[in-house]
Amino acid sequence: MRMVEVIERKRDGGVLSRSEIDAFVDGYTRGSIPDYQASALLMAILLRDMTDDETRDLTLAMAASGETLDLDDVADVVVDKHSTGGVGDKVSLVAAPTVAAAGMPVGKMSGRGLGFSGGTLDKLESIPGYRVDLTVPEFKRQLGEIGIVLTGQSANLAPADGKLYALRDVTGTVPSLPLIVSSIMSKKIAAGADAIVLDVKVGSGAFMKTLDEARDLAVAMVRIGKAVGRKVVAHIADMNQPLGVAVGNSLEVAEAVATLRGAGPEDLREHCLTIAGEMLALGGVVSNLGAGVELAGATIASGAALAKFRQLVAAQGGDVDYVDDPDRFPNAACVRTITAPAAGTVAAMSASEIGIAVVTLGGGREKKGQAIDHRVGVEMLVKVGDSVAVGAPLFTVHANTEDDLDIAASRVLGSLSFADHAVNPLPLFYDRIA
Amino acid sequence: MRMVEVIERKRDGGVLSRSEIDAFVDGYTRGSIPDYQASALLMAILLRDMTDDETRDLTLAMAASGETLDLDDVADVVVDKHSTGGVGDKVSLVAAPTVAAAGMPVGKMSGRGLGFSGGTLDKLESIPGYRVDLTVPEFKRQLGEIGIVLTGQSANLAPADGKLYALRDVTGTVPSLPLIVSSIMSKKIAAGADAIVLDVKVGSGAFMKTLDEARDLAVAMVRIGKAVGRKVVAHIADMNQPLGVAVGNSLEVAEAVATLRGAGPEDLREHCLTIAGEMLALGGVVSNLGAGVELAGATIASGAALAKFRQLVAAQGGDVDYVDDPDRFPNAACVRTITAPAAGTVAAMSASEIGIAVVTLGGGREKKGQAIDHRVGVEMLVKVGDSVAVGAPLFTVHANTEDDLDIAASRVLGSLSFADHAVNPLPLFYDRIA
Repeated sequence: MRMVEVIERKRDGGVLSRSEIDAFVDGYTRGSIPDYQASALLMAILLRDMTDDETRDLTLAMAASGETLDLDDVADVVVDKHSTGGVGDKVSLVAAPTVAAAGMPVGKMSGRGLGFSGGTLDKLESIPGYRVDLTVPEFKRQLGEIGIVLTGQSANLAPADGKLYALRDVTGTVPSLPLIVSSIMSKKIAAGADAIVLDVKVGSGAFMKTLDEARDLAVAMVRIGKAVGRKVVAHIADMNQPLGVAVGNSLEVAEAVATLRGAGPEDLREHCLTIAGEMLALGGVVSNLGAGVELAGATIASGAALAKFRQLVAAQGGDVDYVDDPDRFPNAACVRTITAPAAGTVAAMSASEIGIAVVTLGGGREKKGQAIDHRVGVEMLVKVGDSVAVGAPLFTVHANTEDDLDIAASRVLGSLSFADHAVNPLPLFYDRIA
Repeated sequence: MRMVEVIERKRDGGVLSRSEIDAFVDGYTRGSIPDYQASALLMAILLRDMTDDETRDLTLAMAASGETLDLDDVADVVVDKHSTGGVGDKVSLVAAPTVAAAGMPVGKMSGRGLGFSGGTLDKLESIPGYRVDLTVPEFKRQLGEIGIVLTGQSANLAPADGKLYALRDVTGTVPSLPLIVSSIMSKKIAAGADAIVLDVKVGSGAFMKTLDEARDLAVAMVRIGKAVGRKVVAHIADMNQPLGVAVGNSLEVAEAVATLRGAGPEDLREHCLTIAGEMLALGGVVSNLGAGVELAGATIASGAALAKFRQLVAAQGGDVDYVDDPDRFPNAACVRTITAPAAGTVAAMSASEIGIAVVTLGGGREKKGQAIDHRVGVEMLVKVGDSVAVGAPLFTVHANTEDDLDIAASRVLGSLSFADHAVNPLPLFYDRIA
């Protein structure tokens, strides 16, 4: 294969063969195809698109580019979930132990946050001692023993994706449906999941800004997942406001623990029950989504879900005292609640602006590798559609300095808009693609 | 400027500002912008195109990326020519000394051949001792003293073009009109020409295969040349068969010398007179193309053009004995003339196949840097439209081995087709764009 001919074919709107896609992914992963040829091909793919067959071949080639986990000797069926990323999204911390406690093994590799979008690994690292670098043998042993793992992605799992994503990030080739689909699905396939629930976010705090974009992505992922023999269901969820109240790492862990105790914000609870219920249904523990939601609710109510989370934290070296008493999480130096300057109804907010405010507080990162402050964050005390009186609390900022706090407060306040008439609350979910 | 934002703007069909284009060309030339970002942008430019203003800005930025020659102290007006490349194209060897002998300084930097297309530098190097690596001071001194220079491009002239072209060559981003136009015109502008005659070839032995493509390129180059204050005229010339008889380096020099003596193939002579005449008209020595062609013909007839070529060769260290007696050029080991297997009319031939046959003989190169055998080549003894009897000579192959000769003869013969009816000869020129 001459790589330049592959680039030319895609440039001219042609279709790449499976052997050409395999040779590209293999050559790029091994370093025999240089970055500059890969980026030219990625741009041609973005502008010329890929057929379903090409996307499937790309996904499988990326999944096969490194180690692939075979979990058959650990569990009959392993279920995974994936969120496309949002603000205040701590769903994995609630749904995974709930599903595991209901009898369905969950072995999940998560990522770190970047930009306005937080990452499950960063949140878990709020808990002193919690290890996110399990080896593959450790992963399999723990999954077999306690039925749950929440760790970082093994470096050798779908290495083509890591390398391609880093290149896409600096060459303007991120927003391509076949590239997004193959990136997400290759990792899930390599990680050995039999069933995958996709939590596709749409709105100002998501990568997909419109419902059409989100639906296209969900449809494509479900189709590719099925084409490679996985059970896949996607839920399209709102991300025009943060999920739950807390945005920021230890604040979100505390909120997840509260939700596992049966408390927690109502929107977060509903969202987690739906995702957990779908995981249980897709994995075959129950026969349908409704029964799954019911079982998930019962598993939380019985305390089994919280106990499973505690067991998870202990198994991965974390200090369970923080699970037993989330008040132990250290507070940021400056905490202030901002109140409503006038009466009105919350008409809209910008989830991405709130996410960026948390990044500027030090709770997220602009670039890979930056350290994170786990204590800082924002608690949104209102939702779209809420009526507020003058002086009613709108949000609380947790910052390291008063200056940081002022900047973040101004950004969050600026992202809120108010109306003098009733405003409908936002839905939690828009669609389910099966 | 964030380079990724520039890529994204072009990717989405937007227009780049002059400062963005300047920053890209400058950063890429200096190495602060990596190849992988440049290739992504090049692919986006190829698929999204550029406006005239963007193409002009890109051309000027590339021209300004290194040294620029100021020839004002050497001559009032300096004229240059550029061919887009073809098979048997030895026009510069005839037109440049003709124009210089008629009183119009010609300072020309030429390139080497690649693929089926030959290069003026390779041809000149057939003459033992001929130097193609003049320094800029040498270039200016010689141009002032004898009014003619034919040398290689200074490494520091439009270095952005050299670097970008090498990248385009391996990333499928060569066939983009704004990239082709800026590549050609940036070098001409940096080389200090006031007036430029473009010899745009179209046909099987050219990079532009259709008249529409060639006309688009010619129109774009003339427009950009004028936009940056140069006088530019383009001629669109046929390249469906080789120009003249000889294809191969020393064979072509001998044919150029014959043409300068007033002999030489009729098509080559006509082509050279047109290009030389246009150069004289554009430079202001005569008032129009017709007068230019007449002056060029008279300059050849008087012997002044040949004398100027001899002076050029001497000035650049070449052995003038080869100009005085081209029979001194060493013959290849095997020379054989292939004859017509049947009577008929030459209906078509493939100039690119003939060019490739010469490459396989060792007279051209597949990759940059390959050495060239100056002796080998093909002499095409027929033109499209010629009637041939059985056994009439079709072409002569000059090869190093009988095996090489057989392979080349078979390729050239296979590229010829014959008809049993009259076929119109091909025109020399299709259009003139001023």
